[in-house]
Amino acid sequence: MNIVITMRILGLLLMLFSITMMPSILISAFYKDGAHLAFITGMSITFFTGFFTWLPVRRERKELRTRDGFLVVVLFWTVLSLFGSIPLFLTETPDLSFTDAVFESVSGLSTTGATVITGLDELPKSILFYRQLLQWLGGMGIIVLAVAILPMLGIGGMQLYRAEIPGPVKDNKLTPRITETAKALWYIYLTLTLLCAGAYWIAGMSLFDAVSHSFSTVAIGGFSTHDASIRYFDSAAIESIGIVFMLISTVNFSLHFLAWRERSVRNYFYDPEFKFFLFLMTLTSVSTIGVLWLTSTYSFADSFRNGLFEVVSVATTTGFGVADFSQWPSVLPFTLFLAAFVGGCAGSTGGGMKVIRVLLILKQGLREVKRLIHPSAVIPVKVGGRSVPDRVIEAVWGFFSVYMMLFVVMLIGLLATGLDQVTAWSAVGSALNNLGPGLGDVAAHYGNIPDIAKWILIVAMLLGRLEIFTLLVLFTPMFWRR
Amino acid sequence: MNIVITMRILGLLLMLFSITMMPSILISAFYKDGAHLAFITGMSITFFTGFFTWLPVRRERKELRTRDGFLVVVLFWTVLSLFGSIPLFLTETPDLSFTDAVFESVSGLSTTGATVITGLDELPKSILFYRQLLQWLGGMGIIVLAVAILPMLGIGGMQLYRAEIPGPVKDNKLTPRITETAKALWYIYLTLTLLCAGAYWIAGMSLFDAVSHSFSTVAIGGFSTHDASIRYFDSAAIESIGIVFMLISTVNFSLHFLAWRERSVRNYFYDPEFKFFLFLMTLTSVSTIGVLWLTSTYSFADSFRNGLFEVVSVATTTGFGVADFSQWPSVLPFTLFLAAFVGGCAGSTGGGMKVIRVLLILKQGLREVKRLIHPSAVIPVKVGGRSVPDRVIEAVWGFFSVYMMLFVVMLIGLLATGLDQVTAWSAVGSALNNLGPGLGDVAAHYGNIPDIAKWILIVAMLLGRLEIFTLLVLFTPMFWRR
Ligand SMILES: [K+]
Ligand SMILES: [K+]
Repeated sequence: MNIVITMRILGLLLMLFSITMMPSILISAFYKDGAHLAFITGMSITFFTGFFTWLPVRRERKELRTRDGFLVVVLFWTVLSLFGSIPLFLTETPDLSFTDAVFESVSGLSTTGATVITGLDELPKSILFYRQLLQWLGGMGIIVLAVAILPMLGIGGMQLYRAEIPGPVKDNKLTPRITETAKALWYIYLTLTLLCAGAYWIAGMSLFDAVSHSFSTVAIGGFSTHDASIRYFDSAAIESIGIVFMLISTVNFSLHFLAWRERSVRNYFYDPEFKFFLFLMTLTSVSTIGVLWLTSTYSFADSFRNGLFEVVSVATTTGFGVADFSQWPSVLPFTLFLAAFVGGCAGSTGGGMKVIRVLLILKQGLREVKRLIHPSAVIPVKVGGRSVPDRVIEAVWGFFSVYMMLFVVMLIGLLATGLDQVTAWSAVGSALNNLGPGLGDVAAHYGNIPDIAKWILIVAMLLGRLEIFTLLVLFTPMFWRR
Repeated sequence: MNIVITMRILGLLLMLFSITMMPSILISAFYKDGAHLAFITGMSITFFTGFFTWLPVRRERKELRTRDGFLVVVLFWTVLSLFGSIPLFLTETPDLSFTDAVFESVSGLSTTGATVITGLDELPKSILFYRQLLQWLGGMGIIVLAVAILPMLGIGGMQLYRAEIPGPVKDNKLTPRITETAKALWYIYLTLTLLCAGAYWIAGMSLFDAVSHSFSTVAIGGFSTHDASIRYFDSAAIESIGIVFMLISTVNFSLHFLAWRERSVRNYFYDPEFKFFLFLMTLTSVSTIGVLWLTSTYSFADSFRNGLFEVVSVATTTGFGVADFSQWPSVLPFTLFLAAFVGGCAGSTGGGMKVIRVLLILKQGLREVKRLIHPSAVIPVKVGGRSVPDRVIEAVWGFFSVYMMLFVVMLIGLLATGLDQVTAWSAVGSALNNLGPGLGDVAAHYGNIPDIAKWILIVAMLLGRLEIFTLLVLFTPMFWRR
């Protein structure tokens, strides 16, 4: 463990991160919403903590090794979340406790979008913008994490995507490759954000709302500037734009990169994960719309409109709302949640277990049936015509195993705080999959649950966003041994 | 597929099975409970169907091949359950529909112990005895299935236990080996039953109740002759006897076989599954008793007594009751259910996923953490000091994958019939793990749920008992192809 180089990076990260509070200071000044002091204080604390962390080690020029990646990634989400909570804690509106401020900050940076705040419409604009910006920054981090770092670290089978994006690979030095990849990805991410914001604006949102919602759309975040979320606008055009950009953002950004470089969308349809993702989305949408219509929950037109939007919103783990799906006929809240467990494609801003992992798990199950009938045959697990190495399948299982274990442990924790079963399982599922909304007592917001429950969910959001293992390895003595 | 030899076996099985209705005819005559006609009719139908299935193929002497084992095992549980339901359908008390009769019969033979009947105390003795006997017969079947057949077929990693019991193995002929093994196992099973019945009798049960409850104890069935289950007796002695025999019956019968042959209990403590089983039982018991006491649900004495019995009853998947655990503080119903998902040891009459599978899944998860830190190291999964072959781990994962898939599909099915989430998940979990009691609307019995829900649970009970794959392979075109 290279503590000096980690300090240098952390210092730089904090100084950079402090800049993100600048727009809110300007917005606060423009709207005279009274929150400027909170942001100025927050920015100062963050900047100077970063500066004095960086100062003593600024001349260090050693390269990061692969293994240091774990620590840097975890520090990015934990330390930035903590400093990011300062303005939320300091402002008088909303009047948040320390726990609530951290919850909101982690929920933002992890792009979960679960909120403890009600009365969003009355909040200072600077605070609203800041929440959206946290999600957008979290999304930027995730793209790099998911496309460049996880495959390199081999987290949960993601080595399958190693070297998908060409770039200079020098033994196991981390920086040059990531820098190259990150630039390309951020360019795509920024372009998508601009297109999304423009489309929302043309469709009738105010400029402020358009930019704000574009942030939480491409980041698959789900925060809104209104308590009623997307329903506030009551516009089919805005919902359609949301659907398109949520779907685009839940696809592997490597595919977008290839499409952009080769000026062709062909490669999407060669990708088995993308095809399975589309299949699952279609299946969930059609069956949800069908059930809504057949149970006379809505007219056919409304079943289609609400059903499609909510399926895309929940299945991509965004968490925007146009209807309260927790009140739909009992099978639908469950199946929608199930889709969120599957989540987005690897290398996207989407949460959940990731489509490719679920695909591999299902294929492994089917292989076992075949093997029972032909015990001596060699039956590989194939994805897209290629055999998947055993090592990758084992890593996916390892991921799934630990994922389930932690899910159960945290569920027990929430039940122990006195929450009912439906609230508890949906809250853990929502946090671990970085979805946002839950069922039962957390269908609307997370303000009314005990503080201990909130802390458990904070850990769940971080675990989910860091694909569990990135965070978990730091708690093994083995990691620190040499 | 050897249809002729299968017919011969099925015919013989039905003729043998018809004998199981004989005791009830005698009991009915003795108590003059009026149910004798139902049993005489049921016995005749069963016997003659068997006879006329067997008659045309009686001279067939071909040996069964390994692959035919799937079909025979599935026929044992499905066809016998169907014929076993005849007396239950025909009697006037209880007045069961066709669905309810099949549910009760499958629940008996699969040793689940979920009941649709209330007012047990008023039921004809012959019917009560018959339900218990179905469980005991189911238990006899399971022992052979679990110790001799599953390892040979290699279901869900059970090839790990191949050749644990020495016996003549002639290429892949099924019969000689199974006959030898079955004899030894049934001897142990019968001995345990006699000891259990004797102990219950001495502790104060009537002879009828003692025998009846010994059947459902060693079979890990859970049916009782009283609505109040074991609580009816309100006897610490009876509860202690139940605990001891439930625990013994949930341990791999191969270990009992070795202990009996070598006159030593040493081998138990060399068995990693047994040790992990004891660890889990201790952990669950201590924490449950602690929570009951700390939440003032009971006095310390009652927390200990009720807590210990319910933990053993649910964790072994027996399902006897001395207290309504579904009303305990919310975390306990969940953790107890969780223990039932783990279930008994392989090669026992217990249900659930089996302790060894859960152990392997956990170890695989931990290996993945180690691998991330040392990417190039070869790290085997070890159980009891020996490396587990990859093939076995893959089979366990395949089992787990299909298990989860089916769980989710059946849960969706139950939700679609209008059950609430807690009732639905606990009902599927209880059926698939062959536990018995559920939560919510099925905490006491299964009488009030829709018929479709009952049929889904019937399938779940059979899938659980047949370790899923045995039943599932029959639905693949591949199985029937040659
Ligand atoms: K989200
Ligand atoms: K049972």
